[in-house]
Amino acid sequence: MKVSNSLRELIAARRTGFNLDAPFYTADEVYDLDMEAIFGRHWIYVGVEPDIAEPGDYFTVKLGRASIVVLRDDDMAIRAFHNVCRHRGAQLCNELSGSVGNLVCPYHHWTYDLTGQLIHNQHMGENFECGKHGLKTVHVGNLAGLIFICLADEPPTDFEQMRETMEPYIGPHRIADCKVVAQDDYVEAGNWKLTLENNRECYHCVGNHPELTQSLYEFGFGYQPSSSNAEAVQEFRDLIEREHARWEAAGLKSAEIERLDSCVTGFRTLRLPLDRDGESQTMDAKVACQKLLGDLTDRRLGGLSFWIQPNSWHHFMSDHIVTFSVQPIDAGHTLVRTKWLVHKDAMEGRDYDLKRLTEVWLATNRQDGALVEMSQRGVASPAFEPGPYSPYTEALVEKFTNWYVERLRAAIA
Amino acid sequence: MKVSNSLRELIAARRTGFNLDAPFYTADEVYDLDMEAIFGRHWIYVGVEPDIAEPGDYFTVKLGRASIVVLRDDDMAIRAFHNVCRHRGAQLCNELSGSVGNLVCPYHHWTYDLTGQLIHNQHMGENFECGKHGLKTVHVGNLAGLIFICLADEPPTDFEQMRETMEPYIGPHRIADCKVVAQDDYVEAGNWKLTLENNRECYHCVGNHPELTQSLYEFGFGYQPSSSNAEAVQEFRDLIEREHARWEAAGLKSAEIERLDSCVTGFRTLRLPLDRDGESQTMDAKVACQKLLGDLTDRRLGGLSFWIQPNSWHHFMSDHIVTFSVQPIDAGHTLVRTKWLVHKDAMEGRDYDLKRLTEVWLATNRQDGALVEMSQRGVASPAFEPGPYSPYTEALVEKFTNWYVERLRAAIA
Amino acid sequence: MKVSNSLRELIAARRTGFNLDAPFYTADEVYDLDMEAIFGRHWIYVGVEPDIAEPGDYFTVKLGRASIVVLRDDDMAIRAFHNVCRHRGAQLCNELSGSVGNLVCPYHHWTYDLTGQLIHNQHMGENFECGKHGLKTVHVGNLAGLIFICLADEPPTDFEQMRETMEPYIGPHRIADCKVVAQDDYVEAGNWKLTLENNRECYHCVGNHPELTQSLYEFGFGYQPSSSNAEAVQEFRDLIEREHARWEAAGLKSAEIERLDSCVTGFRTLRLPLDRDGESQTMDAKVACQKLLGDLTDRRLGGLSFWIQPNSWHHFMSDHIVTFSVQPIDAGHTLVRTKWLVHKDAMEGRDYDLKRLTEVWLATNRQDGALVEMSQRGVASPAFEPGPYSPYTEALVEKFTNWYVERLRAAIA
Repeated sequence: MKVSNSLRELIAARRTGFNLDAPFYTADEVYDLDMEAIFGRHWIYVGVEPDIAEPGDYFTVKLGRASIVVLRDDDMAIRAFHNVCRHRGAQLCNELSGSVGNLVCPYHHWTYDLTGQLIHNQHMGENFECGKHGLKTVHVGNLAGLIFICLADEPPTDFEQMRETMEPYIGPHRIADCKVVAQDDYVEAGNWKLTLENNRECYHCVGNHPELTQSLYEFGFGYQPSSSNAEAVQEFRDLIEREHARWEAAGLKSAEIERLDSCVTGFRTLRLPLDRDGESQTMDAKVACQKLLGDLTDRRLGGLSFWIQPNSWHHFMSDHIVTFSVQPIDAGHTLVRTKWLVHKDAMEGRDYDLKRLTEVWLATNRQDGALVEMSQRGVASPAFEPGPYSPYTEALVEKFTNWYVERLRAAIA
Repeated sequence: MKVSNSLRELIAARRTGFNLDAPFYTADEVYDLDMEAIFGRHWIYVGVEPDIAEPGDYFTVKLGRASIVVLRDDDMAIRAFHNVCRHRGAQLCNELSGSVGNLVCPYHHWTYDLTGQLIHNQHMGENFECGKHGLKTVHVGNLAGLIFICLADEPPTDFEQMRETMEPYIGPHRIADCKVVAQDDYVEAGNWKLTLENNRECYHCVGNHPELTQSLYEFGFGYQPSSSNAEAVQEFRDLIEREHARWEAAGLKSAEIERLDSCVTGFRTLRLPLDRDGESQTMDAKVACQKLLGDLTDRRLGGLSFWIQPNSWHHFMSDHIVTFSVQPIDAGHTLVRTKWLVHKDAMEGRDYDLKRLTEVWLATNRQDGALVEMSQRGVASPAFEPGPYSPYTEALVEKFTNWYVERLRAAIA
Repeated sequence: MKVSNSLRELIAARRTGFNLDAPFYTADEVYDLDMEAIFGRHWIYVGVEPDIAEPGDYFTVKLGRASIVVLRDDDMAIRAFHNVCRHRGAQLCNELSGSVGNLVCPYHHWTYDLTGQLIHNQHMGENFECGKHGLKTVHVGNLAGLIFICLADEPPTDFEQMRETMEPYIGPHRIADCKVVAQDDYVEAGNWKLTLENNRECYHCVGNHPELTQSLYEFGFGYQPSSSNAEAVQEFRDLIEREHARWEAAGLKSAEIERLDSCVTGFRTLRLPLDRDGESQTMDAKVACQKLLGDLTDRRLGGLSFWIQPNSWHHFMSDHIVTFSVQPIDAGHTLVRTKWLVHKDAMEGRDYDLKRLTEVWLATNRQDGALVEMSQRGVASPAFEPGPYSPYTEALVEKFTNWYVERLRAAIA
């Protein structure tokens, strides 16, 4: 990996407690390094098991200039391949998703089975070896139904620890027994790290997210302690303690785990009570789907959140799941893909209403997109200098940027 | 400022009397240098006092990647700031103009007063110092109601001489007692220097501007002397002499001042008679607004023009003012912002008709935009080589390019 | 010509039998080199005589950043000039085609006659020399009505051999007695070499071109020999032999000539029988125009194809001609310009129907465009590696890439 001296100096000079210098958000060289050192070497969340429920189901993901096809093979295994024909390099699958028997290149009909083996082509002569022209494989990780890929030859091994830690949390929500009933692909006009920084704090929520804050408690994402909020904060802490005890007793892991900047595959989880009726992230904090997930019977399970470096976050409620993946397009544009999942047997109109299910996060996504765009415009100014993070409400942003800078340092060492 | 050797050689090699080499119009490196050495160090015209008549009124200007907010504070002073929050760098004001009590960042509601001081924020802890996080200021110059900004730490000091020289010319037209009744934001598909070169000659007028030439005399902007035009030229010179005498007697400065390439803040001014009814730059050369500016009573004041390096020109008539500012977008695109001003007490429908007021320059702007685009396409050709300026009708273009090249030489010295 | 070391290494390392490394299709540096070394030094097909049938008729062509105007002068000679005014560089002709008496620059009305001489301008002073400011000329080649230009000072001399060889083939179709009745300008989202590679094989035809394969024989563009196709292949060979004998007896040259990678101006030609009624490249293989070309009387003349490096191919039937020129826009976009010609006396509605005439290649162009776009996406992937060409059906693709790489090597030597 070639890295210019000026970028090396920038990486070395990063000052903790402040957001990053402008080129991290605007420079093409940093984008290229991000795609190689971050998105090319780490576990990237890309979808859920219900996206590819049946053999031959596939979806495609774009990570920088790479396209990857993720599919279910005939033995129900999940596989991922570079979406590039081994003949003259045409892209094999040119849709976001679909269902196929084999992967047939549209150009000259080279045909690969669902394990990536080249099983048929024409005109290549007697000495041509099919066995040497299979699709290039991409590593796949499955964490309780969340599908991750890793483009590196040797993926980070601590994915296994994350999986073991998280499966008891997520398992009861039974992703594999869900269906994806809505997807929002939204391009933010900003660098992907601004998208992540924005996600990792709720300092901005009260002033920007009227829908989301219907169900979120004010103190769930940090605050500056003061005499005026001491009582309310204590009440909230007591509530968490009570609810955690209740949920853990029901077999639902809830305690916070925070390894955001202490692991290669950094993550954090926590089950938090919701305000008002306390059921779900909806406008009235009641469930959006009458049919609960898996074998759950209690509607009041708050929200289990799962944040992962570098590109995703997920909220699991009793009735539905919302998952977010971030895919950088270029230095100044980022795709945020949101999926809403309900129980696969839930019926639209009877059990859930799509508008009610999606309205909070659809609105929140657009609000966040506007904030990210304002940030991109501002950091692009020659007058921008990194400002200080709040020690109370932006600690997780700091952990994200620390993780990011450390991962770059490791990559260019 | 890093400048490549090839650009240094190009700057050193510039041949006077000819337009510039292609990279000056097409290369990203030159654009970056222009934004730093020209637009980052000189006085840039950005608007007029009536744009921000009341306390809290603001407008934003984009100069390259910098956004600047220009506003009227509570003491009626005009101030300018970099439009970037000192927290995480979000752009504060995201509209072209508006009116506010304080400047509140949309992101986390950091709040600055109209002098740029940070007066309120949350969660930053006990040791946070508001006083160290005020908005970054930008220098402001006010020339008889024309507002200039300068991004440099130490702006060119000769702005004061220009102000002293020009106030007697412009003062009687009383910009502060006007209102902006129309604005045209038009993006030309060409480099900003082609826009300026086009503005600095009227050689192209007779073949391209049927509306503008209704009121302009043929000889007002240069011509090649010949036996066939000697008589007409002499008549025009006599007319100027008569009119200048008449106007100066009425207290209206009219004589030409030309410091286009002899000052850092280069400029030129001149009051010229208009053709036909001689009143204004309209289709019939009569005033477009019945209510005259300031205390003026004579409609036949011709046009007082004021050209400034690097980015503006202005025409003052008895009844209205037209001002133009140029803002480079990238090497191949340029915003031309035109404003039309009339007396603040003039009433649309009674005193003026918007179409009549604006039709000449709206048409002329579009015609000039097409010429600039043709020029940009042509100079981008590998076959392009700089051609000769006319010694008679392109002398002011030459002065602009001379000034430009000299300013670059000073910047990279 | 400056070429980076990494590109030099890439050019040196090219492995025959495989398509090119990714940067040849995606890198801006390669695009710039292509425009200089390939499109700047070779004979480029740009149009046909009927495009400029009368004195003053012109069309413009864009080759990279250069625009060229090709015209018929008053003595009926074909001339080409850089489309750039010698004054301040404005583009002279801003339409795709037209008809003029002189070339008058829209900017300041500098006027050039149709031989490129500056014959009129104003204000340039007594010492200005018109004779030194004529338009820059571009070399023109005319091959039986096909018009080529060459931007180099010294064009490849083997154009003459190609002309002598090809005129007996093309002459009887009498391009000069045709008219252009349809033109399709289509931008493919891929590198121009992918467009050419796609054109130089029909391996992809059976799976992608249902319209085109109505009239093409399966074995006309290569196949892998096998026991199962031996008989059909022999039949096809016999057919060619019979038809060639019949056509040559009628004065129509038909035998294959293949100099694709053995000449600077590489080309190939061949007259091939068509399937079904054998008359023309239409949906039913019957003529699209009842009035045959020139003095031809036999409808069943198959298709005479003429492929030229680097940017064109042409099909001549008894009733109509289809010609294709390729003009790179940037590394990832390419204009394909298709023209359909019929006898100039043919009358629409009576002799031909435009839809019937154009439907096969309009559909085929769109299909090829989609394939080129898929290829561009795939080769841009970091996972792409050049794949093997079929020795049977992609030999002409290999000859194109070999020619291309050799021409680059010669240019940077």
